[in-house]
Amino acid sequence: MAKKPLPLSKVYGLLEPGPVLLLTTAKGDRKNVMTMSWQTMLEFEPPTLACVISDQNHTFDILTDTLECVLNIPTVDLADQVVGCGNSSGRTTDKFKIFALTATPAARVGAPLIEECYASIECKVVDTGMVDVYNLFVLEGCKAWIDPAVSDPRTLHHRGKGAFMVAGETIKRPSRKK
Amino acid sequence: MAKKPLPLSKVYGLLEPGPVLLLTTAKGDRKNVMTMSWQTMLEFEPPTLACVISDQNHTFDILTDTLECVLNIPTVDLADQVVGCGNSSGRTTDKFKIFALTATPAARVGAPLIEECYASIECKVVDTGMVDVYNLFVLEGCKAWIDPAVSDPRTLHHRGKGAFMVAGETIKRPSRKK
Repeated sequence: MAKKPLPLSKVYGLLEPGPVLLLTTAKGDRKNVMTMSWQTMLEFEPPTLACVISDQNHTFDILTDTLECVLNIPTVDLADQVVGCGNSSGRTTDKFKIFALTATPAARVGAPLIEECYASIECKVVDTGMVDVYNLFVLEGCKAWIDPAVSDPRTLHHRGKGAFMVAGETIKRPSRKK
Repeated sequence: MAKKPLPLSKVYGLLEPGPVLLLTTAKGDRKNVMTMSWQTMLEFEPPTLACVISDQNHTFDILTDTLECVLNIPTVDLADQVVGCGNSSGRTTDKFKIFALTATPAARVGAPLIEECYASIECKVVDTGMVDVYNLFVLEGCKAWIDPAVSDPRTLHHRGKGAFMVAGETIKRPSRKK
């Protein structure tokens, strides 16, 4: 998938609809990926967001150490991998290997992009002040990538217990707001 | 629309997919409604979430005063009202009147339910510690309502500048997680 750079001012449009994400991290020569649905935008530009990562997750340990990650956006063709990554732990499993996901180098962070995802946002942790109480990390996007061939991505939106709403049609209304 | 109580343990399944919300507030005999897309779950039960409300919004002033609101979930038939509420201010407009939305009494909070929305979650603000820096309010759901006739709601998911992805089909995968 030939991804091109996406202006950071457009990142909110990818995340605001609420898709399931595959969050990647790396430490030394080990990389990891987890499934995540609990995130919100905080600011448009630079794109700033908050996400919840349980302190039971292997990713929590890596992220608090490296302070870098990539948010990759999967589409419905990756539904099995999304559930598989959510049901397994990077402590005991190389998820890239068992779920046949391809890691490619990022430009600004040590965590990898996932080749099979149509968009990826390289992020740095900029505030850990809410981690102790809510497991809430504040991330700032520093580089974004998108496959320009995908205009209406069939993203996954978790309804609970393995049920996913798949993105349908897009409608437009005149709006004065971002 | 005949809404029935929904167990609080199921609220996350309504919000995790990332729908646009209509947030209602009330102060004295004046009620207000705003469109919101920046929210995330923080905890399953009681359902706890964080949402961003700009300090430029009339709702910000009411919510910081009353600490109560209702999150109503609209579907595609309310797209014009969703955009209308996002483009106008309750300081100068009675949005319930001009957008023909019906306010009905909530059970636990002073803010109203929106009759035309298929689901509503009554909430209290439980933490304002992140408001100063991020305009981020922590809400706890105390009562939830749903129209049991709606199993696959055609919710709206904002892609930016008035473009909305409309919820499509739901798929299921075996999962061990909530």
